[in-house]
Amino acid sequence: MLHTSIEEIAKYNGKEVKLQGWLYNLRSSGKIHFLQVRDGSGFIQGVMVKNDVGEELFNKVKEMSQESSVTVEGIVKEDHRAPSGYELSITNVELVHKADEYPISKKEHGTDFLMDHRHLWLRSPRQVAIMKIRDTLVKATRDFFHKDGFTLVDAPILTPSSCEGTTTLFETDYFDTKAYLSQSGQLYMEAAALALGKVYCFGPTFRAEKSKTRRHLIEFWMIEPEMAYVEFEENLQIQENYLTYIVEEVLEHNKKELEVLDRDLTKLESIKAPFPRITYDKAIELLQEKGEDIKWGDDFGAPHETIIAEQFQKPVFVTHYPTKIKSFYMKPDPQRPEVVLAADLLAPEGYGEIIGGSERISSLDLLMERVEQENLPLDAYQWYIDLRKYGSVPHSGFGLGLERTVAWVCGLDHIRETIPFPRMLNRMYP
Amino acid sequence: MLHTSIEEIAKYNGKEVKLQGWLYNLRSSGKIHFLQVRDGSGFIQGVMVKNDVGEELFNKVKEMSQESSVTVEGIVKEDHRAPSGYELSITNVELVHKADEYPISKKEHGTDFLMDHRHLWLRSPRQVAIMKIRDTLVKATRDFFHKDGFTLVDAPILTPSSCEGTTTLFETDYFDTKAYLSQSGQLYMEAAALALGKVYCFGPTFRAEKSKTRRHLIEFWMIEPEMAYVEFEENLQIQENYLTYIVEEVLEHNKKELEVLDRDLTKLESIKAPFPRITYDKAIELLQEKGEDIKWGDDFGAPHETIIAEQFQKPVFVTHYPTKIKSFYMKPDPQRPEVVLAADLLAPEGYGEIIGGSERISSLDLLMERVEQENLPLDAYQWYIDLRKYGSVPHSGFGLGLERTVAWVCGLDHIRETIPFPRMLNRMYP
Ligand SMILES: [Mg+2]
Ligand SMILES: [Mg+2]
Repeated sequence: MLHTSIEEIAKYNGKEVKLQGWLYNLRSSGKIHFLQVRDGSGFIQGVMVKNDVGEELFNKVKEMSQESSVTVEGIVKEDHRAPSGYELSITNVELVHKADEYPISKKEHGTDFLMDHRHLWLRSPRQVAIMKIRDTLVKATRDFFHKDGFTLVDAPILTPSSCEGTTTLFETDYFDTKAYLSQSGQLYMEAAALALGKVYCFGPTFRAEKSKTRRHLIEFWMIEPEMAYVEFEENLQIQENYLTYIVEEVLEHNKKELEVLDRDLTKLESIKAPFPRITYDKAIELLQEKGEDIKWGDDFGAPHETIIAEQFQKPVFVTHYPTKIKSFYMKPDPQRPEVVLAADLLAPEGYGEIIGGSERISSLDLLMERVEQENLPLDAYQWYIDLRKYGSVPHSGFGLGLERTVAWVCGLDHIRETIPFPRMLNRMYP
Repeated sequence: MLHTSIEEIAKYNGKEVKLQGWLYNLRSSGKIHFLQVRDGSGFIQGVMVKNDVGEELFNKVKEMSQESSVTVEGIVKEDHRAPSGYELSITNVELVHKADEYPISKKEHGTDFLMDHRHLWLRSPRQVAIMKIRDTLVKATRDFFHKDGFTLVDAPILTPSSCEGTTTLFETDYFDTKAYLSQSGQLYMEAAALALGKVYCFGPTFRAEKSKTRRHLIEFWMIEPEMAYVEFEENLQIQENYLTYIVEEVLEHNKKELEVLDRDLTKLESIKAPFPRITYDKAIELLQEKGEDIKWGDDFGAPHETIIAEQFQKPVFVTHYPTKIKSFYMKPDPQRPEVVLAADLLAPEGYGEIIGGSERISSLDLLMERVEQENLPLDAYQWYIDLRKYGSVPHSGFGLGLERTVAWVCGLDHIRETIPFPRMLNRMYP
């Protein structure tokens, strides 16, 4: 008998195959069982007719509980009504393990309950769909940068100091000195870009933020490309090409999953470079016109980002933020040093900032000025300062938050479903 | 003028191109400069003849210091004596930034000095070669599992408890409870395998070990595949096919880098599945024959692993370890419960264990027995125990340490060179 997976079932139309999986649902109608079977690669319906398989097997299956592990044998039949396009005419079912009464039923469950059962919740078609799209986004990301000549350079997680400010750091004892969990690999990527030209890191980052919003995770994954000899404008072009590519890849490989999620495909199909741009100045004007109480020099909150993004069908770059509200390493605009050569990319449909990027300061004097203004510890940053002493070059980079991107591409209400095991305020289990 | 990179230079034979990079070395011989230029994608020699470029430019270049950033224009010439196969007949050089006196010279430096300057040391041809091979190994890993239908499922880093024992954990405060940095994503992968069939995680892991050996890092990356419905034997086959694939990919894509590292290619070319196997019992006998003071039930030390590995040209699986010295989740051999269905894979040439894997316990009763024997906190492990209540299946997995694999493939003496920014005992800078 051919042992295969549901994902590959189309290859076996008309043939008898064996699947190893779980009984997701059982519905009976007199002398017919309808078995929904899942095997991790997909879901399929199996039809078992009492007269075909005999009474003994038919009755045995009746006793099989939801999420019992089973091997199923049957003949593959094309069926255009089936979500997978195929059905299985079942010839045999064997029980591997009979499941206890499954805690997650078809009825609505509260969020806390589902989160407490995340290890089981992950089995639902919706969560499987999200995880597969997340996988595609990661693979597409790595493929995009690989094809373009980037080298992966993993940034360290344990660091002696912080990149993004010191109030939201997780601290640990490192053999009698203090270490902090990384909030960004960027500074390390700058060193690596001067060694390897085009580099990226892609790892977990941590913010001990006491915020409980639908956009925040304590632990999240970030991709951070950094490029020597790339200036502000080219940096934006790389970002829009990159985002276009990963959305295309999801549209190509995850049609089924987007359908499970009931995602409006037209919203994703319109994501094509180039993306619109608006300066911070114009954005402030726009917000003021819309009646928001905001003035030049203020940072945007989530509602502001949503208002700005709503003006566009595609992601939008907000450029030239005030120097004062941005990070010390960003290059001030030589024509107008009160703003930096930075841009945030806001996703459509209210998903907020998914990319933050900038050209970096390459001048030693200017960097020292900013380091002093921000009161950064010279010891810890000496290596970073070194980069401006030995062959400094114009360079730029950006960081994309994976989970916010997953939320947007999947059209999810809350970021907690974008990562297999979310870490949030008051949530570290399972 | 065509703007390109050294990696792509073969496409432009006979043409004039522009490179953006750094002056790695300058040697002059009367009326000729030999410039070694690097741009992150490769190294190339440029030849500048005084009579061709004029005295002014020729003298300007003489003042350019090592690691100064420069743009170089010249005509690409095939040259079989050149390591890259090409030379550049230089027509122009422009200085972007003149480097201060570069701290890393051709002379020998002590390890501490090089580690303190890791951000610059990364620019050397040897370190660039290692980073590129590391990149290939990561990409090949992800490609291998993707092609075979695995889904990436990122494991959490912050966890409420440990997988591998509690003496070597980094601890941090997580909103007034304690969190620990992950030592393995395996238990989470078991949950994910029951949802998605074949899964893997690939992220940083942490061991607060006070050991200072050439094989240990505090922070290292591990790939951990986990597969539902896969038993002991198939698990080993997947491992040997996987390792064969990633070594082949390095041989295909990194010939130049392996040459820089002076790696004996025949050693890598012989890495083809299947790999030899030896039981723990036989390995103990072998060690005793070799005069080692070891008895059944003892764990191997690094010297023991080296002696075992020396008997073989390929990596060797050591199988069926005593249950008592292995982790609680490993499945005891039903025929002989004092040993587990586990195998470590020892790399050749004394590089030690690079993979540890096993079939996992799928029986609830047996797992509870082991959890009690090991005195594990039931609260923290409840979700893991759940997996044996709801559709338990035979399942297996393994973990490969990326850095030890890089060390072996590159033929390095010390693991510190295998990761961009190593974290070791007494070393967290830069
Ligand atoms: Mg922002
Ligand atoms: Mg071991």
